[in-house]
Amino acid sequence: MAERGYVARDIRRHQGDAVALEIDMVADEVPVALVYNGISHAVMMATPLDLEAFAVGFSLTEGIVDGVGEIYEVEVEPGCDGIEVRLEISQRAFMAMKARRRSLAGRTGCGVCGIESLALLDLVPEPMGAPAHRISPTPAMMRRAADALRARQPLMAATGGVHAAAWCGPDGELRAVFEDVGRHNALDKLIGHLARARENFGDGFVFLSSRASYELVRKAARMRIQMLATISAPTSLAIRIAGQAGLRLLSFCRQDGYVEYTSADSVTATDAPVTAG
Amino acid sequence: MAERGYVARDIRRHQGDAVALEIDMVADEVPVALVYNGISHAVMMATPLDLEAFAVGFSLTEGIVDGVGEIYEVEVEPGCDGIEVRLEISQRAFMAMKARRRSLAGRTGCGVCGIESLALLDLVPEPMGAPAHRISPTPAMMRRAADALRARQPLMAATGGVHAAAWCGPDGELRAVFEDVGRHNALDKLIGHLARARENFGDGFVFLSSRASYELVRKAARMRIQMLATISAPTSLAIRIAGQAGLRLLSFCRQDGYVEYTSADSVTATDAPVTAG
Repeated sequence: MAERGYVARDIRRHQGDAVALEIDMVADEVPVALVYNGISHAVMMATPLDLEAFAVGFSLTEGIVDGVGEIYEVEVEPGCDGIEVRLEISQRAFMAMKARRRSLAGRTGCGVCGIESLALLDLVPEPMGAPAHRISPTPAMMRRAADALRARQPLMAATGGVHAAAWCGPDGELRAVFEDVGRHNALDKLIGHLARARENFGDGFVFLSSRASYELVRKAARMRIQMLATISAPTSLAIRIAGQAGLRLLSFCRQDGYVEYTSADSVTATDAPVTAG
Repeated sequence: MAERGYVARDIRRHQGDAVALEIDMVADEVPVALVYNGISHAVMMATPLDLEAFAVGFSLTEGIVDGVGEIYEVEVEPGCDGIEVRLEISQRAFMAMKARRRSLAGRTGCGVCGIESLALLDLVPEPMGAPAHRISPTPAMMRRAADALRARQPLMAATGGVHAAAWCGPDGELRAVFEDVGRHNALDKLIGHLARARENFGDGFVFLSSRASYELVRKAARMRIQMLATISAPTSLAIRIAGQAGLRLLSFCRQDGYVEYTSADSVTATDAPVTAG
């Protein structure tokens, strides 16, 4: 069952005054421990699908390895209390991880919790620099991505309770989709998959079914992904981090439009046609 | 600005082929460090509203203190990198916290991340025992709560991107609502508020605008809250933990109905009228 990412559960469905006993599908959520060279580093609650891609993506977006070439082996080991994903990483990356752990800054989970003081926060991303091929969003392209994503969320269709992260080409065509109960997990799975396929992160954009919060922008910026589009709203910190990194942030992306969040400077510098509000 | 929980940002709104420069309201997300007796313990990304209630609720639902009486003082201190909330807690609670930190099990954030190995997980809640006054959900009661909640989410109305946690009386009447970019933060704010008001946790239920995932059920069970209702879907682990704790879990709670997740045993034991599906 776990390979589908959902399980069947008995329910009582109340509709008005009627009650029906039914079987319903529920998104699976299990503890997943990431173990590096024998050392357990973090536990995430995740949907047990695509866990190898998840582990590779998490290792990259949390800066544990500098590239997929530093990951020598990934093994998924189901256990009683959860699932262990065991990674063999390069000696350099493992030493750096241990050094960070000693300074107490390394124990991050979904991007920030696990960190214990403000001084350990990493809120200033490195600017990404201009991409080789700059992607410019158009209404047609965003509509294409939004239309396609709806049809490519089998776990969402079965359970109604998961997020999706998709990789889209420059014209908005959907190339890959991953689902998870956690939005940051869905993004890590997508990034892990792309990295293992040696995809060029400059050659497309990420489209998320969720909101845009801090940790998603931080993870995307670390991979030098130039554009992040989300179906729901962004937070203030997501906009700030995107601006600092030079990542283009689009939210409320729907069939009929989208909103671009930007600093005053970049609005002035726009070359798109602008009409009065 | 921060006291409203949202900030104004320049946006470009794309609607079909038209583009408008506008000002939009965005949910505020800031790092909040919880400092106990001078020791920084955890950093959470949160909406900077009701932070005293948040700190009290977090301390209770994460088991740092056994009761609100162990919290002597709460002080909110804005800084450059984020906000510090400084708590003075009882010597007993502080010693217990330090002991847990030494054994590495105490550094939890949103319920699980920050924990570094499966062995440190706490997946088996204590059964809550039967409540003094058992609350039985009815369609009218759930409709009342769902209707009222929509009108009591000012931050959601302004930004479109936050969660709400509400406390409802036994008839579904809404008594308190808190909002946050993080659903577990919204719940912690609500619980902190109720605890400070010496509310009886057996005398109502929690209604959440979000999905039901592991950490929300775990936090509610720790407070012996007998029923948790959510607007969106539950996860498999949320259902399991609710069953073990004896907490009643309702999801997809809307104006016209809801779904109760339950073990096969409790379905058999029901006294509600049941019709064929």
